[in-house]
Amino acid sequence: MVYFDNAATSYPKPKVVYDAIMDAMMEYGANPGRSGHKKALKASRGIFDTRVQIGKLLNIKDPMSIIFTFNCTESLNLGIKGYLKPGDHVITTSMEHNSALRPIVFLDKLGVKHTIVHGDSKGRINPKDIEDSITKETKMIVTTHISNLTGTIMDIESIGKIARKHGLVYLVDGAQSAGVYNIDVEKMNIDMLAFPGHKGLLGPQGTGGLYIRPGIELVETFQGGTGSISHSLEQPDIFPDKFESGTPNAPGIIGLGTGIKYIFEKGIDNIRKKEEDLTMHFIEEASKIDKIILYGTLEKNHHAPVVALNVGEADSSEISYILDEEYDIAVRPGLHCAPLAHKTIGTFEQGVVRFSFGYENTHEEIEFAIKALKEIAKEV
Amino acid sequence: MVYFDNAATSYPKPKVVYDAIMDAMMEYGANPGRSGHKKALKASRGIFDTRVQIGKLLNIKDPMSIIFTFNCTESLNLGIKGYLKPGDHVITTSMEHNSALRPIVFLDKLGVKHTIVHGDSKGRINPKDIEDSITKETKMIVTTHISNLTGTIMDIESIGKIARKHGLVYLVDGAQSAGVYNIDVEKMNIDMLAFPGHKGLLGPQGTGGLYIRPGIELVETFQGGTGSISHSLEQPDIFPDKFESGTPNAPGIIGLGTGIKYIFEKGIDNIRKKEEDLTMHFIEEASKIDKIILYGTLEKNHHAPVVALNVGEADSSEISYILDEEYDIAVRPGLHCAPLAHKTIGTFEQGVVRFSFGYENTHEEIEFAIKALKEIAKEV
Repeated sequence: MVYFDNAATSYPKPKVVYDAIMDAMMEYGANPGRSGHKKALKASRGIFDTRVQIGKLLNIKDPMSIIFTFNCTESLNLGIKGYLKPGDHVITTSMEHNSALRPIVFLDKLGVKHTIVHGDSKGRINPKDIEDSITKETKMIVTTHISNLTGTIMDIESIGKIARKHGLVYLVDGAQSAGVYNIDVEKMNIDMLAFPGHKGLLGPQGTGGLYIRPGIELVETFQGGTGSISHSLEQPDIFPDKFESGTPNAPGIIGLGTGIKYIFEKGIDNIRKKEEDLTMHFIEEASKIDKIILYGTLEKNHHAPVVALNVGEADSSEISYILDEEYDIAVRPGLHCAPLAHKTIGTFEQGVVRFSFGYENTHEEIEFAIKALKEIAKEV
Repeated sequence: MVYFDNAATSYPKPKVVYDAIMDAMMEYGANPGRSGHKKALKASRGIFDTRVQIGKLLNIKDPMSIIFTFNCTESLNLGIKGYLKPGDHVITTSMEHNSALRPIVFLDKLGVKHTIVHGDSKGRINPKDIEDSITKETKMIVTTHISNLTGTIMDIESIGKIARKHGLVYLVDGAQSAGVYNIDVEKMNIDMLAFPGHKGLLGPQGTGGLYIRPGIELVETFQGGTGSISHSLEQPDIFPDKFESGTPNAPGIIGLGTGIKYIFEKGIDNIRKKEEDLTMHFIEEASKIDKIILYGTLEKNHHAPVVALNVGEADSSEISYILDEEYDIAVRPGLHCAPLAHKTIGTFEQGVVRFSFGYENTHEEIEFAIKALKEIAKEV
């Protein structure tokens, strides 16, 4: 099987990640931060270590300003809905995933207005369009770092500068970038960074997080047991407890920390370079095939390892089905939970076939996929 | 090591659970319900199968009315905050965990009033006290099935009848009961049942769920990608998608399903009987020890495998520390995130040492703990 669906979830994970999860479950599968016995403390320390690893990766000074969530969707919901109040205005882009768009649209009915800045036909967002959309009521800018549809890399550093200049909170969706692209929350003026654990960071499903710049006031999504200030019926106002109610996914978070250590070991620049090479190889060969339409910038340093294409006017689901059934190649068709991004690049009706590459993929697999696409393009 | 902290999380899980999680991660670790390729479909079917197992266990007719969450705290927050509106009134009890009390208290500031019905010194709730608290504005009753502090089993069937008679929604916190005690949402008139995956149901951390009786209108906590109706910026109004945004914990949920199958294989009545036998053995022997104060009903069929105790006036953390350090026995001291329950039984200052037993525990371990308690009681 050839797995080209890494934008949905990275697979396989490094063996050390599976081993760490199993070890955490079997050897010290207690409830961290609840009891004080040895296994509970060991799990608790494992979780803290993951905070430290994430902090190191993203240049976050205080590990306690990183909170763990269930997935990147929860992180985005918390960042958006925990911060904005009736009367506020938020700016986002047409290249966002529904995990950002749907919470923002939901806030409409609570009196939070929004502006959606549109990308160009290659999925690029012009930071100036964002700046031009700022009103007196604007409190926040929400953009993705990398489009999950076209792989277009956004100029988040410029957007961060605009946010800082106008005193706005900048929330970045790192779903497709964390663990592969360099993110420095200080240098990039990122106030909140939402990330999944199970994509580029190489952790398991059921993990995600949100960095919250100290000083930003957020209303928590849940109240509950935090193992702290237990005598009070009010949610504790301390980080990270305020945002982490109930039993966490300790083995998952420990696996995530192991994934990040693996990234340090291999070198994030090496990982990215390999994924970029695979991507450029694929783009170069695919663009030679008659009938294949490629989307995005297709340019090195502007195009992440996510490639959207169509074969003439063929339905994207049909092409994906053939790839899966006849070639055992796993890709993702359809709308990718990013309807406005599809409208932006003109594929709202047809959808696209999305190839997304990971560190475990090889150039041989790319060649095999190209061969498959050539055969399919002849047939349809 | 003797693990008596099963009320925090069950440990160890059956080997088949670890194996199922590993298999799901290593053999088909794709994103379920997102793509249409074989590994994604296999993960998706695994999740559906877990819904079916839970339905079978709890007599839930439509598996799609069971939604998966991160933990029981999220489930309770969703049930409580997704249902109640300004002007409504909710009744709960002093025996609840902070996972129910804190969301209810949080709603105060949004104009949702509450009444807390108090338990007696053994942690028992009189259903009549709940009925007497009903006002014209009452919309919901929230109670735990079993106290996480005293192990007291609540008469949820009688409370369910009261809820039904008065047309109120009844939300039950099954944190300490699901998987060990028989729950029949039809017979017991349970409208919503919150449960963790990682306690009696023997699944991993990072899993939980909420049963929502069809017809109950709940506002979802998160909006985001659901892999369905992706062209729309509005959250889909279909079950379970409405409540399951973003990537689920597929290996975790598949492990949870395996845990439930293990329960069916062993027989829930056999599991409960074994845990009751251990509990009664422990209570009988502990009650003979000078200085040991036991809390709760201590009566068979009224007392679940959770035993709170103190050794004279000694600090509960100190006793737990000695048990851990000198005997390698894992228990949980303190307030157990249930401050009002401690006030109810009079241990708010001292806390208690909580022993909680699981199916993997043995009578030899009980004897060993009793020996340890005897020695400690002599020393302090």
